[in-house]
Amino acid sequence: MPEKLKVSIIGSGNWQVRMWVFEEQIDGRNLTDIINEKHENVKYLPNVKLPDNVVAIPDVTEAAKDADILVFVLPHQFVYKVCGSLKGVISSKCRAISLIKGLDFRDNELALFSEEIERILDIPCAALSGANIASEVAEERFSEATIACRNIDEEGPLYVDLFNTSYFDVKVIGDWRGLQVCGALKNVIAVGSGIVDGLKLGNNAKSAVIRRGLVEMRRFGKAFFGGVHTETFFESCGVADLITTCAGGRNRRVAEAFVTTGKPIDVLEKDMLNGQKLQGSLTAQEVHSFLLARNKTEEFPLMTAVYRILYENQHPKAIVEYLRSDQSFD
Amino acid sequence: MPEKLKVSIIGSGNWQVRMWVFEEQIDGRNLTDIINEKHENVKYLPNVKLPDNVVAIPDVTEAAKDADILVFVLPHQFVYKVCGSLKGVISSKCRAISLIKGLDFRDNELALFSEEIERILDIPCAALSGANIASEVAEERFSEATIACRNIDEEGPLYVDLFNTSYFDVKVIGDWRGLQVCGALKNVIAVGSGIVDGLKLGNNAKSAVIRRGLVEMRRFGKAFFGGVHTETFFESCGVADLITTCAGGRNRRVAEAFVTTGKPIDVLEKDMLNGQKLQGSLTAQEVHSFLLARNKTEEFPLMTAVYRILYENQHPKAIVEYLRSDQSFD
Repeated sequence: MPEKLKVSIIGSGNWQVRMWVFEEQIDGRNLTDIINEKHENVKYLPNVKLPDNVVAIPDVTEAAKDADILVFVLPHQFVYKVCGSLKGVISSKCRAISLIKGLDFRDNELALFSEEIERILDIPCAALSGANIASEVAEERFSEATIACRNIDEEGPLYVDLFNTSYFDVKVIGDWRGLQVCGALKNVIAVGSGIVDGLKLGNNAKSAVIRRGLVEMRRFGKAFFGGVHTETFFESCGVADLITTCAGGRNRRVAEAFVTTGKPIDVLEKDMLNGQKLQGSLTAQEVHSFLLARNKTEEFPLMTAVYRILYENQHPKAIVEYLRSDQSFD
Repeated sequence: MPEKLKVSIIGSGNWQVRMWVFEEQIDGRNLTDIINEKHENVKYLPNVKLPDNVVAIPDVTEAAKDADILVFVLPHQFVYKVCGSLKGVISSKCRAISLIKGLDFRDNELALFSEEIERILDIPCAALSGANIASEVAEERFSEATIACRNIDEEGPLYVDLFNTSYFDVKVIGDWRGLQVCGALKNVIAVGSGIVDGLKLGNNAKSAVIRRGLVEMRRFGKAFFGGVHTETFFESCGVADLITTCAGGRNRRVAEAFVTTGKPIDVLEKDMLNGQKLQGSLTAQEVHSFLLARNKTEEFPLMTAVYRILYENQHPKAIVEYLRSDQSFD
C-alpha cells in the first residue's frame, strides 16, 4: 500500500516535505485535502500520523519546484512520464534519490532507474533499498536501509541526515548498481521460495533457494554491470532484503498458491491481487529473455527454473534439479 | 536427536559402514542388537530405515579398526576421550571428517575440532556443515552441505562419492576454518534472532539480525584465523545454515522464551531442554570471554549484545542499539 504514495518531494531548510499525491476522490473530497487536514493518508496508509511538515500537493511540477531533493517512490511505469513533466521545471542544484525497486528491461537491454532519472533530468540520483517492509517502518519498528550514491563523502551525510532515525538505520555505500540489481531480482527468488513452500520441501530446501538466489543475484550483477561489489550483498539491500522477501510478501504467497492450486499466474493475479501484476513473475520473464538473448540461462539455474515452472509447464518439483550444484557454474 | 548417533565409522570397499553406538539398554536389550536386527535406531532416529550396510558396534576401537574414513558425529565433550581411545588403533592411511558443530574454547584460546582430530590422530581431517537439519535429511527432503578439506583435488571426489545423493547436494571447498567458525557462531546469532522474536520486533529487525550475524561471523573468522575466505559465507555452511538456524531450532526458541517469560537461561534449560545446555548461550559466553581478553567486544556488537542480555541483565530491547550501524566497525 505505501508504494502508492507515488512521489515524495523534499524541500530545503528544516526539511519541509512536499509530497506529490496522485489526486483521487474519497467520499467526494480530494485525497490531498484530507491528507493536509488530517495529516493522514486515509486511503493508502491509514492510522499512521504524518508529521506536520509533510504537505500533499496534487500537481507534480508544483511539488517539485525549488526542491533540493526529489525522492522518487512511484511504480515503474510512471517514471518516464513523471520525469518528462519535471524536465526544465526543477532547480539545477537539485538532486534525486530513487526508492523504486527494479530494473528497466527494454528490448532486451537493462537500465537502472537511478541512471534513467539522471539521464533525463541531468541531476545526480542516489538509490535506497533494504529490508524495510513499509508497514513495519510506519509503526516505527527497527529497520535497516542501504543508500547508494556516486559520491559518498559529499552526498552521504546529506542522506543520513534526511533518512536516519532511531528506528531507521541508514548506511551509505557506493555501489548503486548492485543495490538496484538486488532490489529487482529478489522478487524472482521469492517466487522460487514460494514454490518450495508450496511443495512443502522444508527448511533446508528453502534456505538453499535463498542462498542460491543470493549467489545468482551477485553473479548477475557482476556479469552485466560494472562496479558491482561483493560487499553490497552483505548489506541490508542484499542478503537482508532477500531474506525478508522470501519469508513473507506477495511473491512468495502467490507462488505457493501456484503450486498448491495448479492455477496459472494470471488467474492467481486476478484471484489474489485484484488483477495487479505480480512483480516477481514479471521480472522472471524479463530476466529470462535477457539471459536467453545472451545464451546465459545455464549460469542462472534458479532464475531459469522459476521461469520454466511458471511459463513452460515444467513441474514445480523440478526446482530441486536446478538447485543441485552440478547445475550451476560454481 | 540424531546428534546422539555418536560416531559413524566408514569402512572400505562397497562402503561398508560400521557405526559406533554408545551402548544402552532398551527394554532389556542392547541398542546395537536392536539396530542390527531392525535396521532402525529405535531410540534416536525412530521410523527411519537404515541401509543394510550400516552395522552398529558398541566398541569404538573395533568400529574404527581398518576403517579408511572416520566420520565424527558426536557431542564436543566426547571428542578428546574418543580420540584418545582411537590413537594407535586406526590404520595409518585412514582419514577423518568431522560433522561436529563448534569451536573449542579453552583458556581463552580457540581450536577447531578438525584440527584437534588431526593433531591427536595424526591423520587429515575434513569438516562437513550446512543447512541440513537432520530430520529433513532422514526424510530424504532436499538439503545442501558444504565439505571443507585441505586438498580439494585429492579428497574432494572421495567425499562427494561418500556423501552426495539425489537429495543431499555436496559441494567441496578449501576453507575448513571458515566453515567451522560458521557452524559455531550461528548458534549465538540464533539466540539474537530469538530475542528479536520475543520482542515481536518484526521481519525487518529479524533480517537485520541475520545480516549482522553474517557480517560478524565473517569478521570473526578473518580476524582470528588464517585462510578464511568471503566465498565461504555464500556457501551452505554460511548464509544458508545461518538462515535455517535463525528460522527454527532450540536456540531461537529458548531465547524467545527468555524474553517472553523473563526466566534465566539455566531455568529455561531445565524447563525446555530437560537440563541440557543450550549451545548458543554457551558459545555466547565463550566468545565473549575470548573477545574481552583481546579488547575486541566493540567490533562484534551483536554477539556482545546477546551475551549482555543473557548474562548481564541488559534489557532485551537494548539489542536494537547494538544493531545500529554507528555501533559497528563497518
